[in-house]
Amino acid sequence: MAFSPRIISLLTDFGTQDGFVGIMKGVILGVNPSVSIVDLSHEVPPQDILTGALILRSAVAFFPLGTIHVAVVDPGVGSDRRAILVETATSLLVGPDNGLLSLAAPPDSVRRIIHLTNRQYFLPHVSQTFHGRDVFAPVAAHVSRGVPVEECGPSAASMEQLTLPDVERDTAQVVGRAIAIDRFGNIVTNISAADLLPFSMEKLSVSIGPVQIHGLASTYASVPAGVVTALINSWGFLEIAVRNGSASQQLGVQRGNLVTVTHA
Amino acid sequence: MAFSPRIISLLTDFGTQDGFVGIMKGVILGVNPSVSIVDLSHEVPPQDILTGALILRSAVAFFPLGTIHVAVVDPGVGSDRRAILVETATSLLVGPDNGLLSLAAPPDSVRRIIHLTNRQYFLPHVSQTFHGRDVFAPVAAHVSRGVPVEECGPSAASMEQLTLPDVERDTAQVVGRAIAIDRFGNIVTNISAADLLPFSMEKLSVSIGPVQIHGLASTYASVPAGVVTALINSWGFLEIAVRNGSASQQLGVQRGNLVTVTHA
Amino acid sequence: MAFSPRIISLLTDFGTQDGFVGIMKGVILGVNPSVSIVDLSHEVPPQDILTGALILRSAVAFFPLGTIHVAVVDPGVGSDRRAILVETATSLLVGPDNGLLSLAAPPDSVRRIIHLTNRQYFLPHVSQTFHGRDVFAPVAAHVSRGVPVEECGPSAASMEQLTLPDVERDTAQVVGRAIAIDRFGNIVTNISAADLLPFSMEKLSVSIGPVQIHGLASTYASVPAGVVTALINSWGFLEIAVRNGSASQQLGVQRGNLVTVTHA
Repeated sequence: MAFSPRIISLLTDFGTQDGFVGIMKGVILGVNPSVSIVDLSHEVPPQDILTGALILRSAVAFFPLGTIHVAVVDPGVGSDRRAILVETATSLLVGPDNGLLSLAAPPDSVRRIIHLTNRQYFLPHVSQTFHGRDVFAPVAAHVSRGVPVEECGPSAASMEQLTLPDVERDTAQVVGRAIAIDRFGNIVTNISAADLLPFSMEKLSVSIGPVQIHGLASTYASVPAGVVTALINSWGFLEIAVRNGSASQQLGVQRGNLVTVTHA
Repeated sequence: MAFSPRIISLLTDFGTQDGFVGIMKGVILGVNPSVSIVDLSHEVPPQDILTGALILRSAVAFFPLGTIHVAVVDPGVGSDRRAILVETATSLLVGPDNGLLSLAAPPDSVRRIIHLTNRQYFLPHVSQTFHGRDVFAPVAAHVSRGVPVEECGPSAASMEQLTLPDVERDTAQVVGRAIAIDRFGNIVTNISAADLLPFSMEKLSVSIGPVQIHGLASTYASVPAGVVTALINSWGFLEIAVRNGSASQQLGVQRGNLVTVTHA
Repeated sequence: MAFSPRIISLLTDFGTQDGFVGIMKGVILGVNPSVSIVDLSHEVPPQDILTGALILRSAVAFFPLGTIHVAVVDPGVGSDRRAILVETATSLLVGPDNGLLSLAAPPDSVRRIIHLTNRQYFLPHVSQTFHGRDVFAPVAAHVSRGVPVEECGPSAASMEQLTLPDVERDTAQVVGRAIAIDRFGNIVTNISAADLLPFSMEKLSVSIGPVQIHGLASTYASVPAGVVTALINSWGFLEIAVRNGSASQQLGVQRGNLVTVTHA
C-alpha cells in the first residue's frame, strides 16, 4: 500500500495544562507545515497504558487510510524500552513499545514493525524525559513528508502485546470486567458483541454491582432518566449506562469490577 | 447566499478524554481533507442543552460567513428526535433537533431547515449511540465539500425552540436569573444590555445572593482584587464577577438563582 | 529577518469550557483562513501570569521561525495596561504588557516592542473584557497575512519584566523554590542545570519537604514505582518526581516551597 499521509493524530497522557502537546505540534509543523494534526486524547489517566490502548483501538478505523497515529503513554521513557513504528494495513502507529500500540494493531493486520533508531529523524538533542517531543513527533512528521519507514530503523520481529482481561464463558454465562469509565460515567466492559451471540438480546440478564438488568437496550434514550440500562456501545463492547446520569457513581462500580451475563 | 465553507466548528458534551471528538475529526477529514476544524467546546456539562445553546449563540457571529457549526448535546440519540441542518443568514448549523441550535438561529435569520434523512451522507453503519460520528460529522463534511443542503433531506417547517428563562420587568426593577457559571466563577445572567436601557448605569443596583452592587463597572479591573462587581460581559449579558476570584463561590450563587436590578 | 508566519499559537487562562478560545480561532480564520492554529495551553490557572510565562518560555524554541504566539492571561483587561507585540530573533509574541511575554523574550533577543494602538487591526467593536477576541487575535491574524508590525502601533522602549524568584547560592549550597506543579504532580523548581554546575551530579543531595534525595537521576524510570527522584526536566530545571505517582501530593509540597541542594 502506498501511504500518502496528511493527518497525524496525537494520543497522550500529558493533559493540556503544561504546553507539552503544543510543543509536539510545533515540532511537527516545523518539519511538515502542511500536515493536519488531530488530538485524539490527552486525558489518558497518567501512565495508564491500557486505557490509552483502548482509545487508540477504538479510533483508528475512523481515520483516513494512511493516517499516522502518535501515541505517548510512556512511563518507561529514558529506560531501554524501544521506540517503534508499526505499519498496519490501514495506519502507521508511532510510540513506545510498551503495549500501547498493540490493541490497534492486531497481529494479522501488522505489515512491519520498525525499531526507531535513526537519530537523523529525531530532534538534535534527545532528552531522557520527553520522547514525545524529541523522538515520536519528529519521526512522524518526517514520515508524513515521505521519508520511507525503513529509513527510520531496522525491522523488529515483534512488539509488546497488551491483553484485555479474559472473558470467562460457558454455556450458562459470560463473566467479564469493567475496563473503562467514560466521561459520562458509563461503564465499558471487556465483553464484546461477539461474546453475546449465544444469548437472546431480549432475554439476557446483566449483573453488575448491586443491580441486575434485563435485556439489552438499543439506545441510551430507551429508558427513563435515572434508570440503568445495558447496551452495545460505539466501541462494540457491552456498556452499562444510566440515562442522564453516571452509572459508575450510581452503582459504585469501578474499573476491574465483575460483570456477569446470564440467560434471564 | 453562496456558501463556500472552509471551517467546521465542533461543540459537544463529549469531553476530551475518550477520543470521541478526535474520531469525529477523523471522519470529517476522511470526507474533506482540506477543511479547517475548530473546537468550540467539548466541556458542555453532560446533557446540558441550554449551556450548549448559549455557547453556540455567543460564538456564531465571530466566525466567517458560511462556517458550519456541528453541535452535539444529544441525550435523545437513538430515539425519534430528528437530525437537522439549519441554514441561517450567516451560518450552517448541524445537530439534533432538541433546541440546541435554536438560540444561534433566531427565527428571522432562518433560511431553511433540513431534516437529515439521506443516508448517502451518513457513515455506512449508523450506531444508536454516536450520531456525532455517524451522522452529523459526515453530513457537515459533505456539505463543506459542496453537497447542496437540499440533497441531505426534505425541508422541515420548524425546529425545537429553546427559551431562556423570562426576565420579569416593571418600571422599578428587572428580575432575572443566573444562567451560567463560567470557568472563572463569573455569574452570567439572562438580563441583557437592552433590558437595562431604562436604568442609569451609574445609579442602578444589582442584588444577587447576599450582596448588593451599586453601579455597573466597565471592566473587571475597575475594582480591587476580591471585590464583587457587575458588568456587561462579552456575550452582552449582565455578569457578576469578583476580581481575581470566583463570584459563584464567594457569593454561593448557582445557576437558577435570582438577580434583581433596581434603581439605587 | 523576514517572517513568513504560518502558525499562530494560543496560550490563555480561558479554559476550554466556555467557547472563548474557539471564538478567537473564528476571528483569526476570518482574517487569515490558511494559518495553522496550535493550542499551547488554555489551562493556565486563572490570572496566573507566572505560570503562563513559564509555559510560553518553555515552548517558543520548539516552534518554527516566525511563529506568532498569542498569550492572554490578562487580569488587567480594560485597564490602562498596554497591549503589545514583541519581535524576538525567532518569534512574534502578542499579548498584554503585564510580564506574561517577558520570560520568552529575554532582553538580548528582543528586536522591537510595538504598542498595539492601531484600531484598524482590531475588531470594529472592542469590549472592555475580552481583548483576546477583540485585539490580540485579529492583530496576530493580520500580521500573519503580512501586515508589517510597525503598522500596528508605535515602538515602545520597554515592557513589563517578570522575574523568577531568586536562587540563593554559596559554595556549600543552592536554595531555590518550587515554581510549578505539572499534571503528573512533578515539582518544577527555579534551579537550572547551570545552577548545579559546581556540584557532582552523583554526589549532590536535594532536600525538599520531608525528604532528602541523593544524586540526580537521568530518567523517571531509573527508580522503582513510588520512589522519589530528582532530575533535570525537559524545561532545563531541577524537578522532583515520584515514579508513577505525584511528588507534590506524596511530599506535601506546593508552589513556593523551598528546595535546597547541597554536597552529599
